[in-house]
Amino acid sequence: MNPQEILIDGRRAVDEELARVLGRGESPVQQAMRYAVLSGGKRFRPLLLLSAGEALGTERRHLVPFACALEFIHNYSLIHDDLPAMDDDDFRRGRPSCHKAFGEDIALLAGDGLLTLAFEVMASAPLPADLEGQRAALIREVARRAGSEGMIDGQCRDIRLKPGELNEESYRELILKKTGGLIIASVTAGGLLGRASTADLDALAVFGTNLGLAFQVRDDILDAAGERARPGVFRPNLTLLIGDDGARRRLKDFVAAARESLARASVDFSELKHMADMLLDSEERNGP
Amino acid sequence: MNPQEILIDGRRAVDEELARVLGRGESPVQQAMRYAVLSGGKRFRPLLLLSAGEALGTERRHLVPFACALEFIHNYSLIHDDLPAMDDDDFRRGRPSCHKAFGEDIALLAGDGLLTLAFEVMASAPLPADLEGQRAALIREVARRAGSEGMIDGQCRDIRLKPGELNEESYRELILKKTGGLIIASVTAGGLLGRASTADLDALAVFGTNLGLAFQVRDDILDAAGERARPGVFRPNLTLLIGDDGARRRLKDFVAAARESLARASVDFSELKHMADMLLDSEERNGP
Repeated sequence: MNPQEILIDGRRAVDEELARVLGRGESPVQQAMRYAVLSGGKRFRPLLLLSAGEALGTERRHLVPFACALEFIHNYSLIHDDLPAMDDDDFRRGRPSCHKAFGEDIALLAGDGLLTLAFEVMASAPLPADLEGQRAALIREVARRAGSEGMIDGQCRDIRLKPGELNEESYRELILKKTGGLIIASVTAGGLLGRASTADLDALAVFGTNLGLAFQVRDDILDAAGERARPGVFRPNLTLLIGDDGARRRLKDFVAAARESLARASVDFSELKHMADMLLDSEERNGP
Repeated sequence: MNPQEILIDGRRAVDEELARVLGRGESPVQQAMRYAVLSGGKRFRPLLLLSAGEALGTERRHLVPFACALEFIHNYSLIHDDLPAMDDDDFRRGRPSCHKAFGEDIALLAGDGLLTLAFEVMASAPLPADLEGQRAALIREVARRAGSEGMIDGQCRDIRLKPGELNEESYRELILKKTGGLIIASVTAGGLLGRASTADLDALAVFGTNLGLAFQVRDDILDAAGERARPGVFRPNLTLLIGDDGARRRLKDFVAAARESLARASVDFSELKHMADMLLDSEERNGP
């Protein structure tokens, strides 16, 4: 299989496991959790985890539960981000956002439920004896990157940043946490499950950092084209600072830096490189 | 030391660790997390965990981080529960609730941050080699009891239950999850960290179940006295079904059942029994 086929195959495995874990429970919260997660999405973070872990020789079946946990955390953040108290978005992936479909109370609880489920899955997933010792470090890494020093701090900066405070430094700090946090966690989690050397883990973290920046810049370029722009609402966007062409150049630079960071690695992370390249290739929206 | 003194001493250790873990970070979310957690509270759940674990012979220093994690989860649930989309409470522990003090957006993120921090702490806390094997089971137990089949389902039932649907069965199901979930998790987490036998773990779970029911019935009795009652707002309350005197008898029954469940245990859980008795003794509010 070529990288594209491997990714399609991986996505199918992730989608099956997501549906299995979310089950058939009929409470409103469980319905809302399924509605949010099983509504498409490209599974970018799960595929990063699979790609990193498989390149290092770990079997996919040992990776998939952790890949799903990352997707649960991503979706909890989207549900809470869409709430009226935050970004107040009525639509997500072309459908009513979770609180529009289920009410704010249920959406709030569904986000809480997905975040909690992520950790239940990471604590429960079967692991072979030689990987069991990685579990605590992996949960710690994901919690740290997703928490109040990571993604949550990025969300806080995002909603509190005023137009006059937007500059390249504040933008970078914001994105490294808000978008980068979970992307870095996905790549390093795959590395931990692949028993990567310290050098490889460092290389993966640098890859994740540059990929996170590239991912958000690409999103900004698409947003600036008007897809989500709302008059009168300020959202930090790199194109406000360096224009569309500047952002496109920056996107190429970040993808190049991401690829370059893997040059020193002990194995060929070809799927990861392919995923970085996809951020350049595709004209269609790559997230969320 | 008598049980009362041991509990005061344990509470001091928990309070110190809570303050240490929450640190001095100055972001609005970190301030809100400290505001919510370091505002008093009797540390009921942390003390359950300490009492169970210490009775089984585990050193306090190995228990305290996990006790704090339970308190973080409890406080996240209070912050989210107080939000306008949920119970819309302006006050908590005699002070403005978190969203009144920091805004809804920051309160939402502070709750998310505390939930995430709980798992970071449980994954990071140092454990001696003979307890390391309990860590994953413990995280799984806490996540399961707090998640969409546990506490979150209880919160969902609480906000969605209509006056006509309140009966002893629906009340019990609701309370076993909403209040009982985290109380059972606290006791069984202490048991797991004490390497309790299966029989002792079962006894602790039955104790936690009855204690959770007793705790909520006591809260209902205090609420019915008008402390929190708001005209026109329906809240499930046992006194609506069986009156104040009936609820007081039920409280005694649950405390007796909790004590009785420990009669078969292999060690004397004297602090746990003392904590159950305190629900009967004290006239002051024992929560939240």
